[in-house]
Amino acid sequence: MTRYESQDCSVARTLDVVGDHWSILIIRDALRGVRRFDEFQRSLGVARNILAARLEKLVEHEILTRELYQERPPRYEYRPTERGLDLWEPLAMLMKWGDRHVSKRPPMLLEHRGCGNVIEPTLHCPECGDELTIGDLRLYENTRGKRRAAAAKV
Amino acid sequence: MTRYESQDCSVARTLDVVGDHWSILIIRDALRGVRRFDEFQRSLGVARNILAARLEKLVEHEILTRELYQERPPRYEYRPTERGLDLWEPLAMLMKWGDRHVSKRPPMLLEHRGCGNVIEPTLHCPECGDELTIGDLRLYENTRGKRRAAAAKV
Repeated sequence: MTRYESQDCSVARTLDVVGDHWSILIIRDALRGVRRFDEFQRSLGVARNILAARLEKLVEHEILTRELYQERPPRYEYRPTERGLDLWEPLAMLMKWGDRHVSKRPPMLLEHRGCGNVIEPTLHCPECGDELTIGDLRLYENTRGKRRAAAAKV
Repeated sequence: MTRYESQDCSVARTLDVVGDHWSILIIRDALRGVRRFDEFQRSLGVARNILAARLEKLVEHEILTRELYQERPPRYEYRPTERGLDLWEPLAMLMKWGDRHVSKRPPMLLEHRGCGNVIEPTLHCPECGDELTIGDLRLYENTRGKRRAAAAKV
């Protein structure tokens, strides 16, 4: 889990936590309401030992909580924590990218309950509200509180 | 590359393309201006054979282009395609999550050129402009043009 530890980068650190493909797909399922081991297993078609290991790692990293819902035999439900729920943002953007660039048609659609439209979320500046493109952003190293321009823009 | 092929899901398909941790970190570097093999190697500290294989895969998937910049010996530059540039959105959200939940302090800062503020992008509805939270969204299966409610909300 520490292969990328030398990387002083929040993307690298996020990958250390959310880990491999299966972990990301488990989180995707947890965010859409999947709770039980057998449901994850059915949804993902993953080997049970791999699923068990990934779920345990996600519980360790406080992405999911594990709660007993049946005592004999013991059975657990997995629910996303606040920290886990916040992963909806990168997941929604991975889905948008896949819809645009890989899938022939979007397998799933997102509806905004507020206005009823099927949408692809856009990224905005929380300060001025403007929609953002990659060219609108500059990436700086955050060195000892002193901002220094990084090699190039994002 | 086809382990997740049975998954009719744009997140799974995106993971098939952007692949493993190293590929995501290569794309991160390409988006901030890294171009040459030795620069990627220095930035990532990854074995040269692994880097070469990942770069080749990203060129195959049309995330990066490869252009000769020196003939003897042949040396190439790698530049993000439009498809590659669009990955700035999931990357920016992975960075935001890592800044909030993993890094002790943000290693990098994003400045919005338009207003000059250091920001964390927020997700909005492109139709009505509202800022989105996970609870504002419903996920539907896109089955034969007919929308069907999935197991639960996103």
